Amino acid sequence: MTPLERELPPDVLPMIRTIAMPADANANGDIFGGWLMSQMDLAGGNLAQRIAHGRCATVAVEAMSFIRPVRVGDEVSVYCQLVSIGRTSMNISIEAWRRERSEENDERVTKAVFKFVAIDSSGRSRPLPPNATARLSAASRPSSP
Amino acid sequence: MTPLERELPPDVLPMIRTIAMPADANANGDIFGGWLMSQMDLAGGNLAQRIAHGRCATVAVEAMSFIRPVRVGDEVSVYCQLVSIGRTSMNISIEAWRRERSEENDERVTKAVFKFVAIDSSGRSRPLPPNATARLSAASRPSSP
Amino acid sequence: MTPLERELPPDVLPMIRTIAMPADANANGDIFGGWLMSQMDLAGGNLAQRIAHGRCATVAVEAMSFIRPVRVGDEVSVYCQLVSIGRTSMNISIEAWRRERSEENDERVTKAVFKFVAIDSSGRSRPLPPNATARLSAASRPSSP
Amino acid sequence: MTPLERELPPDVLPMIRTIAMPADANANGDIFGGWLMSQMDLAGGNLAQRIAHGRCATVAVEAMSFIRPVRVGDEVSVYCQLVSIGRTSMNISIEAWRRERSEENDERVTKAVFKFVAIDSSGRSRPLPPNATARLSAASRPSSP
Amino acid sequence: MTPLERELPPDVLPMIRTIAMPADANANGDIFGGWLMSQMDLAGGNLAQRIAHGRCATVAVEAMSFIRPVRVGDEVSVYCQLVSIGRTSMNISIEAWRRERSEENDERVTKAVFKFVAIDSSGRSRPLPPNATARLSAASRPSSP
Amino acid sequence: MTPLERELPPDVLPMIRTIAMPADANANGDIFGGWLMSQMDLAGGNLAQRIAHGRCATVAVEAMSFIRPVRVGDEVSVYCQLVSIGRTSMNISIEAWRRERSEENDERVTKAVFKFVAIDSSGRSRPLPPNATARLSAASRPSSP
Repeated sequence: MTPLERELPPDVLPMIRTIAMPADANANGDIFGGWLMSQMDLAGGNLAQRIAHGRCATVAVEAMSFIRPVRVGDEVSVYCQLVSIGRTSMNISIEAWRRERSEENDERVTKAVFKFVAIDSSGRSRPLPPNATARLSAASRPSSP
Repeated sequence: MTPLERELPPDVLPMIRTIAMPADANANGDIFGGWLMSQMDLAGGNLAQRIAHGRCATVAVEAMSFIRPVRVGDEVSVYCQLVSIGRTSMNISIEAWRRERSEENDERVTKAVFKFVAIDSSGRSRPLPPNATARLSAASRPSSP
Repeated sequence: MTPLERELPPDVLPMIRTIAMPADANANGDIFGGWLMSQMDLAGGNLAQRIAHGRCATVAVEAMSFIRPVRVGDEVSVYCQLVSIGRTSMNISIEAWRRERSEENDERVTKAVFKFVAIDSSGRSRPLPPNATARLSAASRPSSP
Repeated sequence: MTPLERELPPDVLPMIRTIAMPADANANGDIFGGWLMSQMDLAGGNLAQRIAHGRCATVAVEAMSFIRPVRVGDEVSVYCQLVSIGRTSMNISIEAWRRERSEENDERVTKAVFKFVAIDSSGRSRPLPPNATARLSAASRPSSP
Repeated sequence: MTPLERELPPDVLPMIRTIAMPADANANGDIFGGWLMSQMDLAGGNLAQRIAHGRCATVAVEAMSFIRPVRVGDEVSVYCQLVSIGRTSMNISIEAWRRERSEENDERVTKAVFKFVAIDSSGRSRPLPPNATARLSAASRPSSP
Repeated sequence: MTPLERELPPDVLPMIRTIAMPADANANGDIFGGWLMSQMDLAGGNLAQRIAHGRCATVAVEAMSFIRPVRVGDEVSVYCQLVSIGRTSMNISIEAWRRERSEENDERVTKAVFKFVAIDSSGRSRPLPPNATARLSAASRPSSP
């Protein structure tokens, strides 16, 4: 099997990995897109907080498509990569993948860039700390400064 | 105060109206964007199912911006309007609004078009029923057939 | 079809509208009465807080009957109307309605008057603000001052 | 200390005993009446199912008053006693009590009679089994047959 | 039926009694061991706080076996008994029992000793109050002082 | 900094990685041990199902100590390694780690071996598939067959 035939998740650690539970399903027993967006936002916020050394808010989400359904019992992994960084904001590429619980191969479900802003205790945007990305492991840093 | 000074929510009934609870907050006590996206998807799916007379799946979401934060205790209303309809799919415009619990004025938080597809019991797309929108109240129907 | 043949929900906006989810069901897969009472209390508290400009507590609930079951997937709407107002308390009539997710007609499930009291930060009852109901839209105000 | 000075919970085992958690609070951090009604309904349904040997539905609730608030961290106990029994229905007296987590004395919060009906798999009422209460321990049985 | 043929739960009141709900099940519809451990920890913490007159943390759990599955709808009771008490810590024996909702007999699911430590507001261990167990009812006190 | 000064999580991917949310806290605002045990059981069950190609049940848990508290907002990672495998059972070593959300270093919270058994649709133990571990990545396989 070649790389063209089988997708591979991004070469970074998942920021969230969880099992889709019955309590996460809608009335048809399907894991709905909104639950997945909620996990992606939590995962991206996890990386954003790490970069911003504190509280962040989601300010924008790129368009996204849901390629495949997620089913109850699936392992869901959310991978995040910092794409670019501004004075107060971070663009983070977020991919959600599923793996059927008895299988070995992962499949991508959706992908989008989320924009987070560092905020202070009153909710106003604040500058990111200097060298915000310095402490991140190489794989999580954007390739171009 | 003029209409220019004060926004008004769309002239349709909310598909979801709920109170943002402490259990919906993230670790900073903020209602996070992902929770809101999750409510928007449930609301849109509610209208989609009504049109499709059965099970639907979210297949795409337009880009969206979060203009204001939502706080624990806010009343959150999600308004949905059918924008256009295809053979198997529906484009639904979804707006999320907040009202501070002791106040009277509503403020828009975000807005996006979500695309839903009618699916059958095995998850495959299926044609929408003929005259799918006929039974909807005028306000919920797209203006152009 | 005449008004006698088909019930219509009260001519006010719902204070809560939500989808009954699998996570809300009991072990038989039924949406239980207690969940519905919980939604009614949240909805009434929503209106009470709006009138009292702050924290309120439920102090009494009238007898109620559950006319129909609510099923997973139903849209549940809770309508609230202020019935009368005292120095510190509000009597609010609360109705819960269901709509099957692929259908158009709403059916009443139950109805009761809940009594709320405005409380201060230490939990003691406090007088309602003067002109408490002035800002409410006409439909939400009690007909007799 | 005499019975007049200190209330004692009913001399039956609790049907539900739980800890009020932060996730059960409303936006003011208060455990709201609706959550308590929800626990009472679950507790009464627990006893009803035991008597009916199967599925039951709540059909009516008596008026009730909330004498005291319940706080996050309180131990909440719900006591149920069968009051009377019909062909298909059971009237169960349900009391909710709280105990502050570091204290020893219990205080009653509310009390009401709930009416449950035995239902079959299609949701229709069904006769209670003969000698439905025979297996109940003495304390749970109504005093008059 | 003799005591050898039928187990009896410990002769103390349950510290937690709840109904296993669909929302507590894993993707196979089974109530998983982790949910049960979580209830046992809450129940033991309930007794620990009562003895310590304040905040406690779980510091250790003995090995445990799960003898029987718990099913959605089961009544789950958790019984706690203080085994021994140190300067800052308490060893509490915790048993989890199930009762099928339409049946009368209880069956033990698992049992373990949990160790709790009294902590202060900064999370550091603190001495237990003098005569910590004096106020406990006889049945909850360890037999040897 | 030497390995003696800083612990490193096991060199396997986390089976669960999540953010401890306010809704997971107890009444003191602490993430309680039981929640962590619940996540460990879900994570181990995730690996067990992958090995067993189907449904599994937790049958035993080794003694465990909680070295550090987990706080709301922490990233919690659960690492699982297959220790040994029997005809129907798997012993899986499970470690839970925390990372403070604005920090880079991970700290171990607890560790234990959980025993899972493969079960069939009626809940009876069933033999593991031949070559059950063959498909696992090298890092997840036990070193001795």
